[in-house]
Amino acid sequence: MLVVLDLVGIAVFAASGALAAVRARLDTFGVAVLGMTTALGGGIMRDVLLGVHPPTTLRDWRYLLVPVVTSLIVFWFHPQVARLRRAVLLADAIGLGLFTTSGTATALAWGAPAYTACLIGMTAGIGGGALRDVLIREIPMVLRKEIYALAALAGAAVVVAGDWLDWPSGPVTIVGAAITVLIRLLALWRHWNAPVARGLGS
Amino acid sequence: MLVVLDLVGIAVFAASGALAAVRARLDTFGVAVLGMTTALGGGIMRDVLLGVHPPTTLRDWRYLLVPVVTSLIVFWFHPQVARLRRAVLLADAIGLGLFTTSGTATALAWGAPAYTACLIGMTAGIGGGALRDVLIREIPMVLRKEIYALAALAGAAVVVAGDWLDWPSGPVTIVGAAITVLIRLLALWRHWNAPVARGLGS
Amino acid sequence: MLVVLDLVGIAVFAASGALAAVRARLDTFGVAVLGMTTALGGGIMRDVLLGVHPPTTLRDWRYLLVPVVTSLIVFWFHPQVARLRRAVLLADAIGLGLFTTSGTATALAWGAPAYTACLIGMTAGIGGGALRDVLIREIPMVLRKEIYALAALAGAAVVVAGDWLDWPSGPVTIVGAAITVLIRLLALWRHWNAPVARGLGS
Repeated sequence: MLVVLDLVGIAVFAASGALAAVRARLDTFGVAVLGMTTALGGGIMRDVLLGVHPPTTLRDWRYLLVPVVTSLIVFWFHPQVARLRRAVLLADAIGLGLFTTSGTATALAWGAPAYTACLIGMTAGIGGGALRDVLIREIPMVLRKEIYALAALAGAAVVVAGDWLDWPSGPVTIVGAAITVLIRLLALWRHWNAPVARGLGS
Repeated sequence: MLVVLDLVGIAVFAASGALAAVRARLDTFGVAVLGMTTALGGGIMRDVLLGVHPPTTLRDWRYLLVPVVTSLIVFWFHPQVARLRRAVLLADAIGLGLFTTSGTATALAWGAPAYTACLIGMTAGIGGGALRDVLIREIPMVLRKEIYALAALAGAAVVVAGDWLDWPSGPVTIVGAAITVLIRLLALWRHWNAPVARGLGS
Repeated sequence: MLVVLDLVGIAVFAASGALAAVRARLDTFGVAVLGMTTALGGGIMRDVLLGVHPPTTLRDWRYLLVPVVTSLIVFWFHPQVARLRRAVLLADAIGLGLFTTSGTATALAWGAPAYTACLIGMTAGIGGGALRDVLIREIPMVLRKEIYALAALAGAAVVVAGDWLDWPSGPVTIVGAAITVLIRLLALWRHWNAPVARGLGS
């Protein structure tokens, strides 16, 4: 169950990386490498923090096949240029939700306490996208306008609460992911911005 | 003792990250996330290199509360815009000193040999600030003008020497940190620059 | 044997980092720090992924002496400005070959399965250069034009095949490295580019 969610998350994150690479005018290889890095980055950070050696994502060939195929599909059938930015944001939101909750569930399964599991899950969800943005020289989404880390926190909290209440982990993970995606999309749609510091003029 | 020094270091590094985020015109969330990343980045790198799983900073809620509160305080009461750059440099210097020496002491306590402890301590001191600068697309301070890595090395060397001479670890860590901060501030104040390579013209 | 190849790889990667730093007009310290980071980054990532704590490169003083000395030599005797770019590319290609194959062999020696060893070896080969480019705010070579990750993959595959056929590891590692360097230089020389996505105009 966690593996399936992980693979879906990997596919959408790969799509977000590949779309961002197309926007940055990288070639086929660049698109595949950035898609793969975005897709696997968060999971590798999660496993390094948990002390899983070597990281799960480097042991199972499906974890490589999925992002490479996804990236190439995106490369050939990417949307119109004008819609690239929106497509990146959508894929990123879904990946954020799935990775944060599956990362939190994985950390709990490895025996991390609730608080630590939340933080590791958030790292798994945020890490891949941050890596993507740094590699193409953009300021990571998590630092920019609109609620991002809070959306991830909400999803992680749902998983931790579900674990505490002994709810079945599969559905809880999906519900948590859905809540994260919903908050993130609402924030994007309604342009929920937080204030900028005073005294900076325009 | 190490925990207190760590928390003070986390607070000043969070302040440096939050001030840099205000300068980069990030909003409240961006300021909090960058403050947190700057504050915890070095310690997480230290623990990953030492094989401490999960990293200490992800297990103790005070390590999260301190940087978030500090970042928000900075966000509301940051200095005049003109003084932001200087404030970032000052907070960064103090954080560099505290993290380098407490990181070196932590590595020694985990059984790392002196040479390794120096390098891991320097990574702990330099890592958070480098992450901060990369995330807001600046070239990290450690690569730019004025002595930086050397200041960290001096502090780490004091801790290692003190350990070898069996001096009490608390005071030695503080003295080492003070020496690092002093060298760094002197370098900033006197504009101690190293030469640039020949033949590059202006 | 692996240690010697590792040290040669460290020297050429340090040269690539130092040359890139000279191009970016960093001062002596910046040149030394970037040379060191480029040289040691890939190996540290490899050891973190394999769970070798603390990383080998932080335990042996030769791993620090070689890149620092190389960086300073490059700083004093760097080529004419016009040739800096080409020199960076050449040193990077050799480092890529040596690190990928020695990283793959190291991962196999630590018991990683063939597939995982390939990926960890590629990370060791690509990681240091990617870190170098991110730190001086360039888009990493692995994402840009010309075959890069594929060249690394070819070298890693040779090492894995050699291990499977029980060939002696030393020569196989060197042959694999030579193949990677050859592919990479041919790609640079013939400007082997992959296509860019359709519909992006000029």
